[in-house]
Amino acid sequence: MCQLLGMSCNVPTDICFSFSGFSRRGGGTDVHRDGWGIGFFEGDDGRGCRVFLDPSPSIESPLAAVVRDYPIQSMNVVAHIRKATQGDICLQNTHPFQRELWGRYWVFAHNGNLIDFDPALSGRYLPVGNTDSERAFCFLLDTLALRFGATAPSYEHLMDTMAEVAAVLRAHGPANFLLSNGRWLIAHCSTDLHYIVRRAPFNEAHLKDEDVSIDFNEVTSETDCVTVIATTPLTDNEAWTRIDPGTLMLFRAGVPVEVRQSDQAT
Amino acid sequence: MCQLLGMSCNVPTDICFSFSGFSRRGGGTDVHRDGWGIGFFEGDDGRGCRVFLDPSPSIESPLAAVVRDYPIQSMNVVAHIRKATQGDICLQNTHPFQRELWGRYWVFAHNGNLIDFDPALSGRYLPVGNTDSERAFCFLLDTLALRFGATAPSYEHLMDTMAEVAAVLRAHGPANFLLSNGRWLIAHCSTDLHYIVRRAPFNEAHLKDEDVSIDFNEVTSETDCVTVIATTPLTDNEAWTRIDPGTLMLFRAGVPVEVRQSDQAT
Repeated sequence: MCQLLGMSCNVPTDICFSFSGFSRRGGGTDVHRDGWGIGFFEGDDGRGCRVFLDPSPSIESPLAAVVRDYPIQSMNVVAHIRKATQGDICLQNTHPFQRELWGRYWVFAHNGNLIDFDPALSGRYLPVGNTDSERAFCFLLDTLALRFGATAPSYEHLMDTMAEVAAVLRAHGPANFLLSNGRWLIAHCSTDLHYIVRRAPFNEAHLKDEDVSIDFNEVTSETDCVTVIATTPLTDNEAWTRIDPGTLMLFRAGVPVEVRQSDQAT
Repeated sequence: MCQLLGMSCNVPTDICFSFSGFSRRGGGTDVHRDGWGIGFFEGDDGRGCRVFLDPSPSIESPLAAVVRDYPIQSMNVVAHIRKATQGDICLQNTHPFQRELWGRYWVFAHNGNLIDFDPALSGRYLPVGNTDSERAFCFLLDTLALRFGATAPSYEHLMDTMAEVAAVLRAHGPANFLLSNGRWLIAHCSTDLHYIVRRAPFNEAHLKDEDVSIDFNEVTSETDCVTVIATTPLTDNEAWTRIDPGTLMLFRAGVPVEVRQSDQAT
């Protein structure tokens, strides 16, 4: 399948350290060679969004090298390395996917394999490629647009609907996903997803996938709060929390603020 | 205002040569320092799309250096360097803009300044930033979606509607723009836009903005056909064609195939 990486912060932060280890799994320390992508939300209000995509392995992609070295400051990030299950290896099947809803960009990445998932879609959001993942994203946004009409809901109401959508997806197979609109980062664990909240007192962290350490004391201030979410822990000397399968979490400004159970929503 | 660069080809081609000269105008040979962006359509069917955006000047952007050096093969490209008129200098105001319609990505860049342009929008496509340009793009796609419903039109019918839209935009001020969906590249000249069709017999071309030449005989085959469109000519030893103001052209596989007059459409 694939692997996911997400970040939610209360202050613009670069993801170079985490992405460095994560991108090693795209053909180096792991088998996810079928493309990679990363979406950054930028600016105080998180309205700016840019997505970097490459259907080549992250371990050998010149673009991935730029992302590892270019410290883009962001408060919400969604990244993905792909091991194709459904859909060819090509640019239009490379996560994360991006669409606009309510005058904001939404970015989505999925780890899993949805069998016989062919939902009815209104046509407002249609897949460009042929992955189950992009179909899931279109279904999700279509559901939100139909449910809430022209007005963006509060995140509590959003999460109620998201739990319903996640339950539908889970019925078709593994549906771990990350979704962000630049204000909130929503993580759904169906089989595998971990997170860590880093805040003062900060420590040194050491990557699992390469021998690189960072002392967060040197690059943070006392009020910084950063959550990193990943399919499996990225560091080997910190305590990551496993998200229970069937759990949907919403992170805002680096901390979890809302939780739903996707297995109780149907 | 801004400058536009587009490319339409019958075979996947990199735009490194043209982009190298073009990006010099983003703070080097010209004043367009307020960000830049480029959208590439990839794959045989042009469904794959990736857009690189940076609100910093192209002359000093590490990302622009990658795009100059990384030969991305594409049959349709839309690029832009910005000199802000309306809207702050920030990522969400950086062209080109991207949305999805009829299961394809559409990418749009604008050079101009639309005064008092505040069209009614259905809500299906809403601006994320605060430029006249993104409003124009949302108005354009909204008009197409409302006019043609669930079914993508032929390019002839598309062009009829595009001419109407272009006429509406022109009534508010300069509205030079490039639009592509990966199959077609549509160029509208309201004040300034030039193009050149390169095909056999190929010659050497020399950039206007830096002392760089390329011999297209060495990098092409006999059947290649490549159109490059730019606000002002990028080379100083070739004959570029000025597009008459009020003209809308559709390029497919490197050649113009359809023309409309935007000043006769209303």
